[in-house]
Amino acid sequence: MEGKKRNLAILGSTGSIGKQTLQVVRALPDRFRILGLAAGTNTTLLAKQINEFRPRFVSSQDRRLKSSLAETGGELLSPEEIASHPEVDAVIIATSGKAGLSPTLAAIRAGKCIALANKETLVMAGEIIMSEVRKNAAQILPLDSEHSAIWQCLNGERQKPAKLILTASGGPFLHYPAEQLTRVTPREALKHPSWRMGRRVTIDSATLMNKGLEVIEAHWLFDMPFENIKILIHPQSIIHSMVEFQDGSIKAQLSCPDMRLPIQYALSYPERLPNPQLPRISWDKIKSLSFEEPDYDSFPCLKLAIKAGENGGTYPAVLCAADEVAVELFLSGHIGFVGIASLVKRVLDQHKTQAHPSLEEIMAADNWAREATLKLAGEK
Amino acid sequence: MEGKKRNLAILGSTGSIGKQTLQVVRALPDRFRILGLAAGTNTTLLAKQINEFRPRFVSSQDRRLKSSLAETGGELLSPEEIASHPEVDAVIIATSGKAGLSPTLAAIRAGKCIALANKETLVMAGEIIMSEVRKNAAQILPLDSEHSAIWQCLNGERQKPAKLILTASGGPFLHYPAEQLTRVTPREALKHPSWRMGRRVTIDSATLMNKGLEVIEAHWLFDMPFENIKILIHPQSIIHSMVEFQDGSIKAQLSCPDMRLPIQYALSYPERLPNPQLPRISWDKIKSLSFEEPDYDSFPCLKLAIKAGENGGTYPAVLCAADEVAVELFLSGHIGFVGIASLVKRVLDQHKTQAHPSLEEIMAADNWAREATLKLAGEK
Repeated sequence: MEGKKRNLAILGSTGSIGKQTLQVVRALPDRFRILGLAAGTNTTLLAKQINEFRPRFVSSQDRRLKSSLAETGGELLSPEEIASHPEVDAVIIATSGKAGLSPTLAAIRAGKCIALANKETLVMAGEIIMSEVRKNAAQILPLDSEHSAIWQCLNGERQKPAKLILTASGGPFLHYPAEQLTRVTPREALKHPSWRMGRRVTIDSATLMNKGLEVIEAHWLFDMPFENIKILIHPQSIIHSMVEFQDGSIKAQLSCPDMRLPIQYALSYPERLPNPQLPRISWDKIKSLSFEEPDYDSFPCLKLAIKAGENGGTYPAVLCAADEVAVELFLSGHIGFVGIASLVKRVLDQHKTQAHPSLEEIMAADNWAREATLKLAGEK
Repeated sequence: MEGKKRNLAILGSTGSIGKQTLQVVRALPDRFRILGLAAGTNTTLLAKQINEFRPRFVSSQDRRLKSSLAETGGELLSPEEIASHPEVDAVIIATSGKAGLSPTLAAIRAGKCIALANKETLVMAGEIIMSEVRKNAAQILPLDSEHSAIWQCLNGERQKPAKLILTASGGPFLHYPAEQLTRVTPREALKHPSWRMGRRVTIDSATLMNKGLEVIEAHWLFDMPFENIKILIHPQSIIHSMVEFQDGSIKAQLSCPDMRLPIQYALSYPERLPNPQLPRISWDKIKSLSFEEPDYDSFPCLKLAIKAGENGGTYPAVLCAADEVAVELFLSGHIGFVGIASLVKRVLDQHKTQAHPSLEEIMAADNWAREATLKLAGEK
């Protein structure tokens, strides 16, 4: 790719990761060209992005965009059509929720290079996704800071590592006594100490469900048994994850907590590009990096997620759907903070899993879980 | 090399690095065979090693070894002959002092893979050594934990990094007030907080001269300008060094402070071998890793070394020789701890350097520096 512009398609361009991807593209205009943009409901921002980046392909439910597109000469396509278009070099999947699944599969089947930020894809359908990736010689590059760190540490190593060590900030409620956790408000839970992110992932970070989902993703991305994936609390969020090799040597990846670095690395890989807008670590500001074991009792979502991953089948899809609904119920004041974990647990306990499920069976489990969560919460 | 035993020659087999190399070989008998051993004055230990490892070639000044060799069928050769023998796959240069220079050059000219622990070689003659390495398609693999860490972090990266970050424990006198440093005894200076090493390198670690010499080595090994090599004090000696890349991402290598890991990595590269004798990091024991800038005023050897490296020519050879003599004068009670730096500085100030010196000119500068150091100390 040296010297040549890469044609990018961003699905979910108006969300947190989508906007930061566009910041990277803006900073490195000689290297990247926006060929396609897709967004959900934020039509105002999408129209602005179309004006600035003049993509050839756009996906939106909003017919009003037709007029902006007439001006820039763009064409309305489905997310799947954009993700698999022959002129697209790399697809950034920055949508949240299960809406990411179908365009990701389209991109994989077209043998694309896919930068994946969508958690649900691998959590719900990791077995299907990775088998399609192998079949179609596609490539999935991680955008999450943790998985990007692991991927960077694996660079050049020929053997399977002994262990992956996922770091976690611990969220805003690290060291809270159990009693205090019961009184946490949505407002408090939406303040993350190190990262600015969307609402659901911020709550998932506070319950540590997010770290559990990342363990499942790491399992699929790096073909690593669950027992060899360790979680380590590291409140400063400077070491983004580590890899322990067969000889006991460990490599860690460090940087300021800023998603633009892993995004840029996935887009420029195997090159690394200087970008003056990316912050660099100042060692005079970092006095110490600390580590501790996670508190599985105070944050039961962590074990729920790992167990769902180990049990496999449709459990991870149910975990994901139940958690999404439970987080909404918490944000709307219907359940308390500790209620998220207990609600998800009750849904998982009721679930009858399906081994090696098809996509349809995964989607059915997802629907069942949403209904079951609302029913158990007394909302239906 | 997979599946095939590697034939090793160890020069300096009775020293600290030599003995630890033999421990690695002992732990992995299916992978390595000792073809040659060379040692200086410790004939008793060398005779034991000959009995255990039955090397085909031995180098020693001590004619009494002839009888042990008659028993094992070994042959007495010079270090240079062993280092360049066609059947030797890798040469471990574990000698200390300038005695390592000539066999290293012999190994390079024979196009060998050289695992280098000898500091003087690159510090005194880096320009000549690296040019010979390129000319003869030889390979120098670092054995020092810091340079091994950098080398591991560079694995798989295609571009020149932005910065090397060498970590330093800070030695036993970290945070000592200036006045207290003047009263340091040899006995105190010989106790290093994290590493067990030979006498000179232990004192050099206490003055931070050792870190300065490592900066010069890193400059040559990784072709990195001095201004892009940073030193960071990290008292726990868990992160052995780091590399900052063009995009600001940093990789660090972590392990317990045990020289057997970098030794084994150099011998097994590009493979990593499981070795149950190597300690692994227990994260429940590591609470925090701390960092601070070095105190250049209290430890002037650091700046002296970096400046000698930057000025080049015969300055680094003079630095190295003057320091060796000054350390001896300190250990024998002739000068104080802070006298080491001031004595080395006075020798450097008196020196008339030679740009791009030949080996003979480097050796002449070394001799001059030893004489000058003794004279300035009033010992001659």
